[in-house]
Formats: sequence, C-alpha cells, structure tokens
Amino acid sequence: MSAILQVVSSLIDAWWRAANYLSVGQIYLLDNPLLREPLSSEHVKPRLLGHWGTTPGLNLVYAHLNRVIGERDLDVMYVTGPGHGGPGIVACAYLDGTYSEVYPHVSRDGAGMRELFRQFSFPGGIPSHVSPETPGSINEGGELGYSLAHAYGAAFDNPELIVACVIGDGEAETGALAASWHSNKLLSPSRDGAVLPILHLNGYKISGPTILARIPEAELVSLLEGYGYRPILVSGGLDGEAPSAIHPRLAAALDEAFDEIERVKGTQLHARARARGGPRWPMIVLRTPKGWTGPKVVDGLPVEGTWRAHQVPLTEVRERPEQLAALEQWMRSYRPDRLFDEHGAPVAQLSELAPRGERRMSANPHSNGGLLLRELGLPDFRDYAVEVPSPAATSAQATTVLGSFLRDVIECNPDNFRLFGPDETASNRLSAVFEATDRAWEADILDTDERLAPEGRVMEVLSEHLCQGWLEGYLLTGRHGLFNCYEAFIHIVDSMFNQHAKWLKVTAHLPWRRKIASLNYLLSSHVWRQDHNGFSHQDPGFIDHVANKKASVVRVYLPPDANCLLSVADHCLRSRNYVNVIIAGKQPELTYLTMEEAIAHCTRGVGIWEWASNDEGSEPDVVLACCGDVPTLETVAAAALLREHLPDLKVRLVNVVDLMRLQPSSEHPHGMSDTEFDAIFTTDRPIVFAHHGYPWLIHRLTYRRANHRNLHVRGYKEEGTTTTPFDIVMLNDLDRFHFVIDVIDRVPGLAARAGELRQDMEDRRLACRAYTRAHGEDHPDVRDWTWPGVTRRNNPCKSDNRPSGARNLQPPFS
Amino acid sequence: MSAILQVVSSLIDAWWRAANYLSVGQIYLLDNPLLREPLSSEHVKPRLLGHWGTTPGLNLVYAHLNRVIGERDLDVMYVTGPGHGGPGIVACAYLDGTYSEVYPHVSRDGAGMRELFRQFSFPGGIPSHVSPETPGSINEGGELGYSLAHAYGAAFDNPELIVACVIGDGEAETGALAASWHSNKLLSPSRDGAVLPILHLNGYKISGPTILARIPEAELVSLLEGYGYRPILVSGGLDGEAPSAIHPRLAAALDEAFDEIERVKGTQLHARARARGGPRWPMIVLRTPKGWTGPKVVDGLPVEGTWRAHQVPLTEVRERPEQLAALEQWMRSYRPDRLFDEHGAPVAQLSELAPRGERRMSANPHSNGGLLLRELGLPDFRDYAVEVPSPAATSAQATTVLGSFLRDVIECNPDNFRLFGPDETASNRLSAVFEATDRAWEADILDTDERLAPEGRVMEVLSEHLCQGWLEGYLLTGRHGLFNCYEAFIHIVDSMFNQHAKWLKVTAHLPWRRKIASLNYLLSSHVWRQDHNGFSHQDPGFIDHVANKKASVVRVYLPPDANCLLSVADHCLRSRNYVNVIIAGKQPELTYLTMEEAIAHCTRGVGIWEWASNDEGSEPDVVLACCGDVPTLETVAAAALLREHLPDLKVRLVNVVDLMRLQPSSEHPHGMSDTEFDAIFTTDRPIVFAHHGYPWLIHRLTYRRANHRNLHVRGYKEEGTTTTPFDIVMLNDLDRFHFVIDVIDRVPGLAARAGELRQDMEDRRLACRAYTRAHGEDHPDVRDWTWPGVTRRNNPCKSDNRPSGARNLQPPFS
Repeated sequence: MSAILQVVSSLIDAWWRAANYLSVGQIYLLDNPLLREPLSSEHVKPRLLGHWGTTPGLNLVYAHLNRVIGERDLDVMYVTGPGHGGPGIVACAYLDGTYSEVYPHVSRDGAGMRELFRQFSFPGGIPSHVSPETPGSINEGGELGYSLAHAYGAAFDNPELIVACVIGDGEAETGALAASWHSNKLLSPSRDGAVLPILHLNGYKISGPTILARIPEAELVSLLEGYGYRPILVSGGLDGEAPSAIHPRLAAALDEAFDEIERVKGTQLHARARARGGPRWPMIVLRTPKGWTGPKVVDGLPVEGTWRAHQVPLTEVRERPEQLAALEQWMRSYRPDRLFDEHGAPVAQLSELAPRGERRMSANPHSNGGLLLRELGLPDFRDYAVEVPSPAATSAQATTVLGSFLRDVIECNPDNFRLFGPDETASNRLSAVFEATDRAWEADILDTDERLAPEGRVMEVLSEHLCQGWLEGYLLTGRHGLFNCYEAFIHIVDSMFNQHAKWLKVTAHLPWRRKIASLNYLLSSHVWRQDHNGFSHQDPGFIDHVANKKASVVRVYLPPDANCLLSVADHCLRSRNYVNVIIAGKQPELTYLTMEEAIAHCTRGVGIWEWASNDEGSEPDVVLACCGDVPTLETVAAAALLREHLPDLKVRLVNVVDLMRLQPSSEHPHGMSDTEFDAIFTTDRPIVFAHHGYPWLIHRLTYRRANHRNLHVRGYKEEGTTTTPFDIVMLNDLDRFHFVIDVIDRVPGLAARAGELRQDMEDRRLACRAYTRAHGEDHPDVRDWTWPGVTRRNNPCKSDNRPSGARNLQPPFS
Repeated sequence: MSAILQVVSSLIDAWWRAANYLSVGQIYLLDNPLLREPLSSEHVKPRLLGHWGTTPGLNLVYAHLNRVIGERDLDVMYVTGPGHGGPGIVACAYLDGTYSEVYPHVSRDGAGMRELFRQFSFPGGIPSHVSPETPGSINEGGELGYSLAHAYGAAFDNPELIVACVIGDGEAETGALAASWHSNKLLSPSRDGAVLPILHLNGYKISGPTILARIPEAELVSLLEGYGYRPILVSGGLDGEAPSAIHPRLAAALDEAFDEIERVKGTQLHARARARGGPRWPMIVLRTPKGWTGPKVVDGLPVEGTWRAHQVPLTEVRERPEQLAALEQWMRSYRPDRLFDEHGAPVAQLSELAPRGERRMSANPHSNGGLLLRELGLPDFRDYAVEVPSPAATSAQATTVLGSFLRDVIECNPDNFRLFGPDETASNRLSAVFEATDRAWEADILDTDERLAPEGRVMEVLSEHLCQGWLEGYLLTGRHGLFNCYEAFIHIVDSMFNQHAKWLKVTAHLPWRRKIASLNYLLSSHVWRQDHNGFSHQDPGFIDHVANKKASVVRVYLPPDANCLLSVADHCLRSRNYVNVIIAGKQPELTYLTMEEAIAHCTRGVGIWEWASNDEGSEPDVVLACCGDVPTLETVAAAALLREHLPDLKVRLVNVVDLMRLQPSSEHPHGMSDTEFDAIFTTDRPIVFAHHGYPWLIHRLTYRRANHRNLHVRGYKEEGTTTTPFDIVMLNDLDRFHFVIDVIDRVPGLAARAGELRQDMEDRRLACRAYTRAHGEDHPDVRDWTWPGVTRRNNPCKSDNRPSGARNLQPPFS
C-alpha cells in the first residue's frame, strides 16, 4: 500500500469507526455518550430497540463514497435500501454536519450527541429506519424493495447525478427489487444520470440466510451480468480478517466503478456498443459479515456474521453486568477518544474526509427535491376543450382529449415531466403524447418499431411497481409526472402508495423538507368498461384504500366527462404534496359541460345540474346523485325517464367530481360544511346515489350527515362478468331503469301511482338483457341514448388537431 | 428427419392447427363454425374482443407436451402465464375432450363448436383470459405475474408432478414473476415435483417490445443461468420460416428438458451436485413471432411478429369485405376440413395425440384441487390452552401459544400443510414450529445455520408475493396452509388477494370445481405494537380491503387473547373456499377467557363480557365495545375505571371477534339480525367502540343499525410514530382514560356530575405521556395493569411444553 493510500485508508477507517460508534450509541445509550465515565446501567436505554446488523456496511460504503466525491468533485446521492440501518445513516449525517444544521438541538458536542442517542427509537423520537426525518434520504426504509426503482427515478433527467444505491440481500428477494434491475434498459447515458447499485451481501435476513448470498458466486455473477451490469466483487472481514483490510480493496473497486460510469456516459449508442463488448453500467457486490465490528459471540453463540446480529446483539445490558461490560468494550473498540474532541465534536481530520456543502450526500439538494422544484409549464387546458353544444348530446373519449393536453405538457417541459405506465399508454388512449415524444428504450430498436427512443419521456414497463417507484424517485427529487394505469391493477402498488402517503404526511411537519409535486394517478380502463376482460379486471377499490390515508394528503376526482377531466388534470398537475387519484374512462361517453361550466363545476367539486333537474330552486322530491362517468350517464338517463314519465315529480340531479367533498369539513380539508351538504342533498328527501366504486364508501363518507338515513347507494358489488357496457351496469343495479324503480320505491306515495311505470322499467331491463344475450351488444336504445330532443353525434374534438396556441408554446423555464 | 418423427411432427402440426383454428373461431365467429359455407358478415361477432397474439404459442407448447406426456406417461399440469391466451387453452381443452365433459352443451360436433365460439368474450359467456371456468387451469390470466409462483406452489409435495409453466415475456417484467425464478432454491428434488418454466419470447406487450426479447441472447442466457436454470433455446418462424419447421426442434428441446428433470430428481444433495456442474433444473426459451400463423400484413402494416397482433388482427371484418375474405383465408389456412369430421368432431388422429383421462392436462386432478383435498389432521386445540384463573389477570403471547398448535399441525400432516411467511416466523413468535420442521432451503447450508433443510415445511423468503403465490398454488392443488405476515406489509399482496377472492367467488358457481382449503392469513406484528418501527409499519387497512370482496368468500377475525386465537385458528384451518384473515398480537397481553369460554365466545363471534359489565341483564347506560387485542385491553381497563369511579353507572362490555357479525345478515352470511344486534348494542344507549383498525370501517358495517346514531368509534387514524405501546394508543385516542372521557361526554347527564373524574382522566393521560417521554417506557400503572383485585403474572402456558396428547399424534391419513 502506498503511503498516501495508507493515510487515506486510515482516515476512512476513522470515519467508519466514528459512524459505527455513533450507531451503537443510538441503539444503546441514554447518557454518557462519549464514555467519559465508566458505563453504568443507568446510561443504558430501558428498551433496546433498533437494527445493528446492516449498519456497519452502510457506514463503510458511506465513508468510502465520501472519499470518491471529494477526489472527483461528484454530485452523489445515497439511497439506502437496507432501511433498517437507520442509525448508520443518521450517524453519517451527523458526522457530515448536516444533522446539526437541520436539527440545531442535536449539536456537534457532547450534549448534542446525548440528544442524538436518546431520540433514536425513543418515544417522540425517530424510528429505527431511514425515514423522512433523515437528511439525505428519499427512501423510507421501513418497507423493503423500492430503493433501486427510487434510485433510477432520481437519475432520470439528472445527467450530472450519480445515485449510489445500497441494496440489501434481504431486500433483493422482493418482487419490486428483482424487477428493478432491468431499469437500466430505460436509462439514457447521455440524458440521464448514473445509478451505481451496491449489492450488500451480509448473508442474513431477520432469522434466515439470503438467497443471493448463498448461491455459487459464478451464478451470482451470471445473474448480475444477465441484468446488464458489470459486477465488481469486493469482500472483507471473512474468516476473521481485520476490518481495516477492506479499505484498499473497496477504494479500488469504487474507483473502477466510477471510471466505468464515465466510460459508459461517454459512449454513443450505448446499447449497440455494449453488445459489442463496450463499457457496461458497473455495480459493486460487497460481501461482509452482518453486524461487522460488533460482538462476535454472545452467550456462547456466534453473533457477528450471523442473523443474530440483525437487531440488538446484546439484549440484557441493564440486567447483566457482563453484557454491560461487553457493550462498553465494544464501543471503546472504536477508540472514541481519538474520534471526538474534548467538547465531543468530531475531530478535524474526520471533517476533512467529508465533502463540503451540497456535495455532502446528507445535504444533496436532490434528496430534498422541493428545493429544486421548478413550476411545470402548462399550456392552457381550455384550448383542448371539446365543444358541448348541449348537454348529453355529443360524445368524446375523455382520455383521448387529455392525451393532447399531456402531449403539450411534455413538449413544454422537456426535462421536467414524464408519463409512467405499464404499457397501457396507448390502451388508455393517451397516444397523442407520441406526437411529442417516444417510449424510453435503451435496448435494441428494430425497423418495425414505432415510438421508441433512448430519449423518450414515456416510461413503459409491465411492472406497476417500477412505474410507481420510478415516479416516486422522480418526484422526490423535484420533478413532475403522472402514472396512468388500469384501475383494477393499481392495487398492485397499494403498499407503495401507503408508504409514499405516509412520507408526505411526515414531511409536512418537517419545515426543512420543501414541498414536492403531487403524485398523480390517472386510472382508466375502469371497472365499468371491461367488456372482454371481465371479472378479473373489475376492481374499483383503490379509492377506498386511498381514503384511509391522512386527509391532508389524499384527493380523489371522478370527472364525469372530457372537459371536466381537463380541468381536474390541470389542477392536479399544479398541486403539491398530495396524492391525486383521477378516474376517467377511455371509451366514447356523453359530454355534459362546456369548458367554462366544467371549470366552475370542478372548482366546486360537487354541484346541482340544473339542466337535468326540474326542482327549480324548490325542495325536490328526490335527489339523484352520481359520481363517475358511467354512473353519471345512467343517472342523467334516469332523470330524463322520470321527467318524461312523471313530469310532476321534482327531481334534482347532483354530480360529485371531488369525492372528498362528501366528508365533513372536520374530516377533510375539502369536506363540505353541513349547511352546504344539506342545501344540496336536503335533510329529508330520498337520495339515490350512483357511485363508481363500492357503494359503502359513500356511506362511510356521509354517515354523519343529517340526510344519511335517506341515502340509498348503488355501486359495484363484485358482480362481474364478461359482457357489454350496459349489461354490467344492470348486473349491479346501477342502470337507469333500476334508478327509476329506486325512486318509485322511495318517494313517499309514488309507488301507488307509478306501478305501471315500475313494471315498464322492469320489462325494459329484461328486454335489454335479452337483447344483449342474443346480439352480443347493447340495445341501440341505451347504446345511442342522448338527452331527449337532441341527436347523438361524435364530437370532432379539437384535441385531434393540435390547438393553434399550443404548437409554439415555449417552456416557461428554459 | 426420420419417418417416425415426420409422422409425429405431422400429427403435432395437425393438433396445433386445430387448436389455432378453434382459437380464431372463438374470437370471430357467431356461426358457420366449420366454414362449411362461405363466410359472410352475419357469421361474425358484432364486437370483436379477444387476444390472439399469445395464443398460437400456447397452443404449440400444449400440442408438444401432449406428445411427451403420452410417450413418457407423465403427470403434467399446464400453467398459463400469458393469461390473455384464453381462447388457446379453451381450444386445447376442447380438443382434449375435457371441455365437453365439463360443459356438455359445448359438445364435440358442429353445434357444440358453434356454442364454443359464441360464448367467448360474449355476454354471459367466458372472458378472454384463462379463468376459473377453464378446465385444467389454476392460474387466472387476467392479472399477470403469478404463474411461476403458482407453478412452484403446485409442485411442492407432489413428487410425481411436473408443472409446465409458460411465462410470457410481458409477464416476465412484473415484480412477482421476476422474484419467482428463485423459487428453485426452496424446491426439494426428492420430496417435491418439478417445474419446467417455458419462457415464451414473442417480443411484444400490448404496444411495445419486451425487455427479455430485446436484450442480447448472451445476456438472457446469463440471466437465466444466474437464476439457477439450464436454459434450452428454441426458435421458429423467424425470417419467414414455415411454421412446421419448428416441430422437430421443439420436440428435441422438450425431450432434453424432461431427461434433465429426471437427472435432477435422481441427484442426492442437488445443491452441491449443481455447484460441481451436475444437472440443473432445465427450462425452455421459446422464441416465435407474436400472432404466429395469423395475418402477416393488414392495411399495409406488419401484424404477425409485431405488437399489432396482440388483440384482434382484423378489426373490421363485418364492415370491410376484404377483411372478411382475409379472415376466411386465415381460418381455411389451417385446413379445417382435414381436422374435423363430417359432424364437426376432431378427427380420430387428433385424439390419438392427446393423452387419456387424467393424463390430459385439461383434466389433471391437481388443477381441480378439491378433488384431491384430504382433511387436515388437527390435534385438539384445547390441549394448547393457557390457564386463565380469572379474567385480565394473567398474560400470554397469543402467537407463541398458536405456534405450539401449528407445530403439531405440521407434525400431523407431513405432506399436506405448510407455513408461509417473509422471514417473520420467528419474529411473529411461531418458533415452536421449528421443533417439528425446518425452513425449506435447497441452497448451501453452513455449520452455523439453524433450522434449514431441503425438506423443511416453513417457506420463508423476503417476498410477500412469493409467499402468497406459493400458498395459492399449494391450496389450488388441494393442500392446506397458512401465511403469517406483518400486518402493514400484507398490502403488498392486496391485488393477489383480490384475484384469489374473485377466483373463489367464481368457482362457487362451477359445480365441477370442488371446494379447496381456505386461504388463511395470520397478521401479527400489528399496528399497535410497532414500538421502534414506527409509522411505516402501522397500517391496519387490509381488513378494509378484504371487506370489499364478496361476502360469501371473506371472513375477518380479531381474537382478543390466546385461547380465542386457538379457537379461531382451528375453525379457519377446517374451513373451505374462504379467505380468512386473523389478526393477533405477538407481545405478552392479558388473557380473558378460559378455553371453554373462548370457544363459546368465538362461536358466537360477538358477546357481552358479563364479568366486565355491571348492567346485569338490564339496559346499560353505556356500551363499551371492542375488537382486537389491544383495543380490548384498553376497553376492559376503561370499564374497570368506570366501575371504580362511577359505580352506579351501568356499563356493558361487548367484545367482537368475528368482524362480519356486525353487518346485517342480508349483507354477509355471518351478519347478525337486527334483533340480535339491538339486544347486544341496544337501540338508544351510547356506544363507544374501540376498533383495531380505521374507525370508519365500523360505521360502514353498521350504518343500517338502529343505534348507529349513538355509535362513536375510536381506531387508528394515521397518527403514528416511534413510541411505546400505551403512547401510540393515546396518540389515537384509543386509551382507557380517553374512553372514560368519551363515556362522560356521551351519557346524558353524566358530564355534570363527573367533571372531576373527567379532569383526573385528562391529568392521567398527560402524566403517562410525560412519563413515557422521560423514561422511554410506559408508566407501570398502565404497563402492569390487571383487573382490580388480582395480581398480574405471566402464564407459564402449557404451550411451552408439548401437551401430553400431542407427542404421539399420528396423522389421520397416512
């Protein structure tokens, strides 16, 4: 080893020991942080909660990256897959100085170190995982599997950024992580940043071995090469080797990796060059003992290098003097007296290893994306409006109309916005975006291919996990995006949504975390139009799932037609720190509102449609309410039937766009006051409510309202099958004829005089069912229905042509 | 090619053409199934819905496997990953004869073929995917990604079975599938069957290319070898090659694969042998054009071999004569006159290729698991009871107690029951099972390892997707199991649960599908005990998700203590065709009921706990209701406080074990009548309800009840943090002191005379919070609380020792 390398290695080792010392201190100590007095049991926490096993490895990599960043002046983020190593990343941020800048009460002295230790896994403190509270992190480490997708999301459109992503060998067994390796096929070496995966094989999960650590090394290399990487293998600490021996090896491996990244980024046509043996994206495989540098044996059983090191190696420190002594010996083995000065601050040499300012991984502005967030350049959505000469007369495909708007959003924001989806962009009728961009594709491209390019901004892969994970990483680093998905299959990312919503809820209370763009879902191909896909594709439950999360974070919109979808989408794209769920069909559906009417309606979120009502300001006999495009169509048709057949019945039609408006204002920021609710829904008239999803959600949102006792909700009740659009609606009693029957049955006194109409409605239902079974399509009376007195026509919507104002739109920020 | 091979190839080709013909017919034709008259537009369906692209490949593999099965007399199941190829698998089952046996109206003649065609993607018919209606399938093809996990689940404990699993290259991009390749590390060559993955690279998803079809072949081979397989590559139809040219190549590849399977199964210590270059599990990589044998070009654009073949290649057959002609030409290209006899039945030579009886893949009894289902041998759960000398005096760890029961379930059922979980078996305190078995592990085993063995029956991998997928495959082929998981992370499989629940709902209406064992979840490490993990681990929403599915399928149990958990678990393990969700904590918690009391209570599902109530048969002043172990503890403690401080207040304590009891009987089979509900909850007294999960679920279940207007629910409201058991409860107002305040605020007239008590409760809350913040643990008054007059002790539960009757238990079926 050269003299310089020796000095560097020794400095890295000191930094590593300091981080390990601070990690152990967090897990164990209430007081005496610098061990300036002999350790006694009252210095130890009463409940020992935390995860040691993965921590020393995380600290080791962090220390070494500090060296590389300093030497090469690089912009590097650190994504921590083995999230249970929270104490390590907190320790590193403390050594960097960032922690004390963000949390001044955790100062760089003995008192601050005491606070650092005490808060960890302690009531009112921080969790044992890397979490929103951890400076430098975009990846909550509680639920495993998303680090690599987050890393790629962060790298997209950040050509100067290198994202170092440590992947635990436990995490590597998850589906999301296993799929994420192939993200490199959608990464452009010239436009995007680099991701350096560091697969950390410490061999064990909570209580068993990991697969990747136990397969033959040749198989592991083959696997990683198969994923398209060039793996660089490093190991240390095996068979009792001294910890410090790893430093030159790991330093050399990292230098090799960063050199290779430079080579890849310098390659034109990377996919072809790679196929000819050119440079490949590198990755590191780091094999070290679990719980390295911790107790080797406890009570006669091996701990270091086994699953027993996963959480707290010494569990009875307060109760057993020999464990107290072992803890003290363990902590002193890091030689804290050489690492911290008389005040308890890290000695100056340690600060020399850490990069400066925003080069510190814990202070990298990409990891606090709101700092870098630029406003999205948005064309005027009104320019994409479809003409609606009269309500319920013309039809349009809502998502097709939206596609044109999104095309120009992409054009206006060439490095700041992407569209994500599992190969459903075209299926969901958003194909207009391909006039502005392509699908991102870094692998081979054939002559017969269409709309593929390494610089494409449509991110398609048949993995909802990857779409969600990339988008999260992209948003968390300060950009904008939209995830379009089949409604039923968005449940695949229920748990990822949970974690992102929790992240947003926590960051709202962290003033130093700046607001980021909202996570926007467009759910199309929804429950009511799965004509050949049938029951497996029918699931509207994501709304229910979302509604369980914190009200300050979640928003759900069900625009009834194309113009409303435009208005809602524009609103969502401008919002911050929310999760917005938009549900809109892709099939031709009637349109109801002009653009100006749609804006007013969507702004209110709920409203009476006077053109469909005949209560004319007085109290109605019945309220017909609806939420969602297909339920709205059936409700409007029911209103027309009632007005035709029972002209003296006063009907009020209410449409709900913003579902959270139904909740009390005490429960959700969008919630209506009782006065507002009562003015719309009355306090005593029957309400027949047609809901897009499971009917009980409407009850759950409204059970405190005065008129809840008169509320009758129709929705999807898991009665699905392969059938036609009207037939599936009938199967769930959500059809126009059934609503008329509902009204007859519920308006006092009506049943007696409308018996004939009731029977007629029953007959028409049966006739429609019979027609469908015989012909394989819906009866023309329902299929082609329009509001009485108008003729249906397809709207030659403007969106088919680029609006005049859009072609020359310039990004507002260049 | 030898003469015999030529004959076989020609027969396989005829079979393939017949299956393709029947597939195209399903997508297009209403009538004229045998093309005995010229095709006219009225023979064509009005709505063309279906998926052609993947179908010819599925048919090709099916035809070839028929040859192998016949020659080798093998027991082979066919799992169809590219599920959109529904018409293909239906066609194959029809050619096999199975379809007509199961659905006699779809007979083997022209009329039956007409019915076969008509029903497909037609109102009241079958969906375009492989579905529960498809004989021979255990894998719903609507949502992609689960085929390989299902295949391994089917193979476990079926040593004679070979599961051929076709994996689409689209599906291969999903997380679940990507993780599934490594399932071979938990497959024992001697005890289990074999899985033959057949990766079908047709190159395209809905509208874009697939990753695995576009990476260099060397990378693909490297990847699959890295997964531990020996890939055998076959391709055909590329560059215009005639379809029939593939037959000898594919036949040879399959022979090679089946030979290799025999070699692997003959190897002792497979993992070691493999590392030394011994036989490896084989797999096939089959590269053929998408939509092979279909239209090559439509309207000047290439279709065969591109994404345009994904659904319906000719979309305007009724409208455009040239497309009608193209369809007729396409169908006649299969030479139907040589494939079907004068009555329309398949010609005799085709039947000769198909295996006989249960050897037919479409009739394999493993694919209708209920046929093979054996009763689970269950020890008497009463033998594992903990002693409960008086209520709320002793404590036990419920899942530890259950662990002993499960240990003996495993022992009694050595080839019929497995325990699945993401490395959380020990964490969830089920370690007693390791007295009876080990973790399944086919990779390397080290000296320091514990409880690993190739024949282990505990299936641990850090992938909830794999645990769920394996268990589904295991259950669907007629066995039993239980999935234990952290409560928060079970959301990872929300969508898989959806599909399984839908499968069960559909099969209930298919008399030929026999009932299978229920899918049992044990959710532990629940929302209320995530002391160091904090917010990311706090999510009780799976109950809500489950409650949206069909009432005939879903059951949710929240046993309040150890004996109740035993009773509930026994009940669930005996049940059929349900999804049972059991939520139970792993920490020491008070016990309330003796075994006999627990049985009675769990049988009723909801009941008044008279020992904690003082209403003595009269109407109470207030009902304290609770559901879940931690909410029950707080409610019981609140009842004690009320009885101590307000002795004249009549309190009734109601505990709910079976959550679905709260629903009206019209909504759920377990639902209570209004009479029953009113008798327990009264019609007019305040109810304070402490719920384990999100509070609004209780409102959703009870909004129709008379006393819903007086119901006040406390539960989890996304207020999570790192803290102590009592502190998190306080944070969500679910604590005993708050319940007393709730009662004071809600019982008419009480506030006036209990103001001092109210203040005292507020003070005690604040004091508890302050104590926690200062000491890092809960105040001993709450931590060690027992029912007044008794002293807390830990129950030396019988479960620590094997009950006398269990050791010599013999499996009831040997």
